[in-house]
Amino acid sequence: MNTDEQQIRRLIATWMEASKSGDVETVLTLMSDDVVFLRGGHAPMDKQEFARTARAQADGGPQFDGASDIREIRIMGEWAFAWSQLSVKATMPDGAQKQLAGPTLTIFRKLDGKWVLARDANMLAPVQ
Amino acid sequence: MNTDEQQIRRLIATWMEASKSGDVETVLTLMSDDVVFLRGGHAPMDKQEFARTARAQADGGPQFDGASDIREIRIMGEWAFAWSQLSVKATMPDGAQKQLAGPTLTIFRKLDGKWVLARDANMLAPVQ
Repeated sequence: MNTDEQQIRRLIATWMEASKSGDVETVLTLMSDDVVFLRGGHAPMDKQEFARTARAQADGGPQFDGASDIREIRIMGEWAFAWSQLSVKATMPDGAQKQLAGPTLTIFRKLDGKWVLARDANMLAPVQ
Repeated sequence: MNTDEQQIRRLIATWMEASKSGDVETVLTLMSDDVVFLRGGHAPMDKQEFARTARAQADGGPQFDGASDIREIRIMGEWAFAWSQLSVKATMPDGAQKQLAGPTLTIFRKLDGKWVLARDANMLAPVQ
């Protein structure tokens, strides 16, 4: 069995693992070319800027290790959305650690039979 | 002409106007019963909690006056999503004002022929 929901769960798991290991090239295969990343206090980010930022992070920037607790996945034909509670430990280059948590709302699209991330709202905030 | 996109634009405009005038009962008719509001630093909020919070605000709490610049609307059958750049001026009960801005990512659903808000990610942050 390999339902759309299972494929999206696997996509999210692959995203988290590849992000953790700094495998930017794999992460870039998991998103559409017209992806938009939204978060507070920042301009919308496209795929090119995501790649630049992620490569700089992989090259000596902060390291991120996160867990995504998926609360809902809804398939709408060739589109889907999911929301999760995300928890991330960021380790700065100097070894200092910061805990972040918050929800994400993500829209996925099935392109050529493969689910990819298409729009992402990231509401991570420092844990008080 | 009255396309799905036009109906969603009208829904967003009605939402902004009713919110501004403190008309909580109208705002509540613009969302599904299973709506989920997501933002950083807060637990997910359901319709009941939204109603409680909005009624408390209308009754002497901060007043909000906002403008929504819609950047994309995508119809997916009986579902749709939109993202916007939102700008809000909050006026506190003591007259102090605070400017907030940031993106929103919203999922809409067509129920009994009427579009309503179903999931909402709010990334408003204080303007520096």
